[in-house]
Amino acid sequence: MASSADPDELVASTDAQHPANLIPSLCAKFWTLGWVTGTGGGCSIRQGDLVYIAPSGVQKELMKSTDIYVLSLSAQPQPPSANQRTYLRSPPTFKPSQCTPLFLAAFTRRRAGCCIHTHSQWAVLVTLLLETQGSHVFEINNIEQIKAFPRTASSETGGAPSNLGFYDTLRIPVIENTPHEEDLTSFLEDAMDRHPHTCAVLVRRHGVYVWGDDVRKAKTQAESLDYLFQLAVEMKKLGIPWVSQIPRVGPDRP
Amino acid sequence: MASSADPDELVASTDAQHPANLIPSLCAKFWTLGWVTGTGGGCSIRQGDLVYIAPSGVQKELMKSTDIYVLSLSAQPQPPSANQRTYLRSPPTFKPSQCTPLFLAAFTRRRAGCCIHTHSQWAVLVTLLLETQGSHVFEINNIEQIKAFPRTASSETGGAPSNLGFYDTLRIPVIENTPHEEDLTSFLEDAMDRHPHTCAVLVRRHGVYVWGDDVRKAKTQAESLDYLFQLAVEMKKLGIPWVSQIPRVGPDRP
Amino acid sequence: MASSADPDELVASTDAQHPANLIPSLCAKFWTLGWVTGTGGGCSIRQGDLVYIAPSGVQKELMKSTDIYVLSLSAQPQPPSANQRTYLRSPPTFKPSQCTPLFLAAFTRRRAGCCIHTHSQWAVLVTLLLETQGSHVFEINNIEQIKAFPRTASSETGGAPSNLGFYDTLRIPVIENTPHEEDLTSFLEDAMDRHPHTCAVLVRRHGVYVWGDDVRKAKTQAESLDYLFQLAVEMKKLGIPWVSQIPRVGPDRP
Amino acid sequence: MASSADPDELVASTDAQHPANLIPSLCAKFWTLGWVTGTGGGCSIRQGDLVYIAPSGVQKELMKSTDIYVLSLSAQPQPPSANQRTYLRSPPTFKPSQCTPLFLAAFTRRRAGCCIHTHSQWAVLVTLLLETQGSHVFEINNIEQIKAFPRTASSETGGAPSNLGFYDTLRIPVIENTPHEEDLTSFLEDAMDRHPHTCAVLVRRHGVYVWGDDVRKAKTQAESLDYLFQLAVEMKKLGIPWVSQIPRVGPDRP
Repeated sequence: MASSADPDELVASTDAQHPANLIPSLCAKFWTLGWVTGTGGGCSIRQGDLVYIAPSGVQKELMKSTDIYVLSLSAQPQPPSANQRTYLRSPPTFKPSQCTPLFLAAFTRRRAGCCIHTHSQWAVLVTLLLETQGSHVFEINNIEQIKAFPRTASSETGGAPSNLGFYDTLRIPVIENTPHEEDLTSFLEDAMDRHPHTCAVLVRRHGVYVWGDDVRKAKTQAESLDYLFQLAVEMKKLGIPWVSQIPRVGPDRP
Repeated sequence: MASSADPDELVASTDAQHPANLIPSLCAKFWTLGWVTGTGGGCSIRQGDLVYIAPSGVQKELMKSTDIYVLSLSAQPQPPSANQRTYLRSPPTFKPSQCTPLFLAAFTRRRAGCCIHTHSQWAVLVTLLLETQGSHVFEINNIEQIKAFPRTASSETGGAPSNLGFYDTLRIPVIENTPHEEDLTSFLEDAMDRHPHTCAVLVRRHGVYVWGDDVRKAKTQAESLDYLFQLAVEMKKLGIPWVSQIPRVGPDRP
Repeated sequence: MASSADPDELVASTDAQHPANLIPSLCAKFWTLGWVTGTGGGCSIRQGDLVYIAPSGVQKELMKSTDIYVLSLSAQPQPPSANQRTYLRSPPTFKPSQCTPLFLAAFTRRRAGCCIHTHSQWAVLVTLLLETQGSHVFEINNIEQIKAFPRTASSETGGAPSNLGFYDTLRIPVIENTPHEEDLTSFLEDAMDRHPHTCAVLVRRHGVYVWGDDVRKAKTQAESLDYLFQLAVEMKKLGIPWVSQIPRVGPDRP
Repeated sequence: MASSADPDELVASTDAQHPANLIPSLCAKFWTLGWVTGTGGGCSIRQGDLVYIAPSGVQKELMKSTDIYVLSLSAQPQPPSANQRTYLRSPPTFKPSQCTPLFLAAFTRRRAGCCIHTHSQWAVLVTLLLETQGSHVFEINNIEQIKAFPRTASSETGGAPSNLGFYDTLRIPVIENTPHEEDLTSFLEDAMDRHPHTCAVLVRRHGVYVWGDDVRKAKTQAESLDYLFQLAVEMKKLGIPWVSQIPRVGPDRP
């Protein structure tokens, strides 16, 4: 793929599943969901050592493969927040995304294959509701959709994923927002360390970062989380608590 | 259709109305409605003895006909929950849907031609609101859209369907969720027995199963139910009761 | 158009603006707006003496021109509610819409060129909110969008339409629902007589009928009304009255 | 572009980025967002001295390039509100938009390249909520999305834009609506003078005008504002204030 000296070949492919084609089609879909309104939010895919990232300030539903940055994960300076990143390929008219170090954190600390950042209003409203309680973690249980989330990190189970059960409680940490998005990196990494099984971190008054082993898993978890955030806001409006004790029904087989 | 020894021919057709083409197009539509977010929910079609089922864990808006499972209804082991199902055709990279025994219940007990399972938030919110009242049945009356639902099972009327009238009360039973989706089967079947005329069963904190004689009826009832669930949630927010006594207007001709 | 003996030629045209093509494209759009969910609602266009009507029970986003009924307005029996309508052209597999006499009322009493019937939840919620006050008319003022509605019937002004001003009050009558949709006809006609300038009638717990001189006007008014119904519901949730006294600003030129 | 005597050449181009093609595609997108429902709202692009404007009363999702008006900015009568505008090109069947003098104000006073006018319900609801407090300015702070807005007018910084920071407060002035849209012009201009850095003005019970140096900036700011208006309405429903004091986190580097 990088056999040629021409960096533009890194984003030139007729395969719809190539990251340079997949990021624009995902972002267009996310735009219709209200996740990347007003050029906010973003998406990055890792394929082996290569990382593909949407640029800053692009209209997400209009992105093209030629807008994509490409960098080599192993060739980045240490510490990764040094802001002296080198790119294998840069688009002619954009700036790198401020989300870059946050995406890299998911790729290096969690070996993620895809990371999605949304400004979804449901995520923001959940962080605002938690703020009124001084809370730093979103918790919800006894909802079928939480089965979409891993109970353990995939590295622990050697590839056989174990997901949350219906009676389990999903916990997503919330970090405070910083004036500059890249300054979120150390707080995101801390939250990853404190919640080793989480696949997402909420950012107060800002949005959410969600990652997964591959595009399908990252997208499924991002959709399922947004579903739960919206449901949680509606439950709040209707006076229904997010965490409850309900009687168990049926066998709880392994 | 099954004349060849090649099981892939069971899902190969250029006819848009073939179940293997119809399920993906229906699921893509359901995705835009928020019914099958995050690979949740599903859809199955029966044509004679053949049953076509969407697989587990597939991104519903991206499904292809080659993702579909096919099984023979008459060739299933008894009892059907024995989990030793054989498939005439299996896709190469998926697992069978946990919804399978629930779809089969609709096909065998109700002779349904199509069954739709959604995780619609409106359905979940209705079950949560009913839970606060300890209720196991959703009831609503005096809304035009309830005319979309049968008053009697179609088998009783010999093909001439009789639908609910405007002043009638629509009743949809609610069953409690179980840790494993397939364990819902006996509860779903019990609810079918106790509510012989219902075309749907709500699952608490999970979603809804809706079926019909054919795809058109199942989809129309699924849409109409979701409409009523959303309306009911909004009515609740505005303090309007779901069941009311209103004066009758005009003749109530047969 | 009707020069041939073949009635199917009445709905065969390659012109996208032909009523038989326009009704399906309008209905598909209305489906995405939630106006014709679950085969509810409908649409009819009059061109001279010919009336084109969507059938009963059709999935509105999947309609085809060959699904359309055509009748001659002048050739209908008197009184028009006699339910002995003759059709110039009938589709092979559908039943006539129960909305037919209501559409005809708009065509004969108001010389409308298009009539749209929606089951929009916003319309239904407005009628429910008005019911709690025992009210039979929806009123809202001081909202820019009410300028979309006529102050007087177009027949009164000899073609030069006079629309409501910003400080005027839009009034839409509400009639009670009947068990059979066609029985609404006399109540709809009464409301038309009592509100000679209205271009719409709300039906309690059911939806709304909106008409206009042509498709563009009917659609614009239907969209503007739905906008106002949704706004009114949100205003109610936020405690803001629908009718208010506000200071006048700027000249109120004719 | 205007080299020919044929004014229709002003709107004839195969380039999707030509204003006469861009305005229809933008308006179609805005229609799906609920910004230009019922022919309300509008959009105008300036390219050098030429101004392209959507006509009055057009169904925005169906607009064609041939529906566009074109005028020369320098050739307009003074004062610009004199309503004796001349057009280089007029469509055959429409009337000029009443928004025209308001778009021109953004082009002449702010050197904007694009101005968008929406009737978004979120904008209207925000002005209604502010009205109950007697307020003439929308204020919100500590939300990531406010970084999309300029802190200073672009003319002040010589091309290097300085945007609001996370802890800053975004302020959007609100003017009262007038019976005739063109009469808003002097109030809009006053608000521009009093709020020299604003890129938008809310119109009470009507909507919002948003502009930017080019189409991308105007659209990004319009989307981000609508996001904030919707968020603000939901915050109000949940009892969360729009302006808050929160502890600062991380360095506030320039």
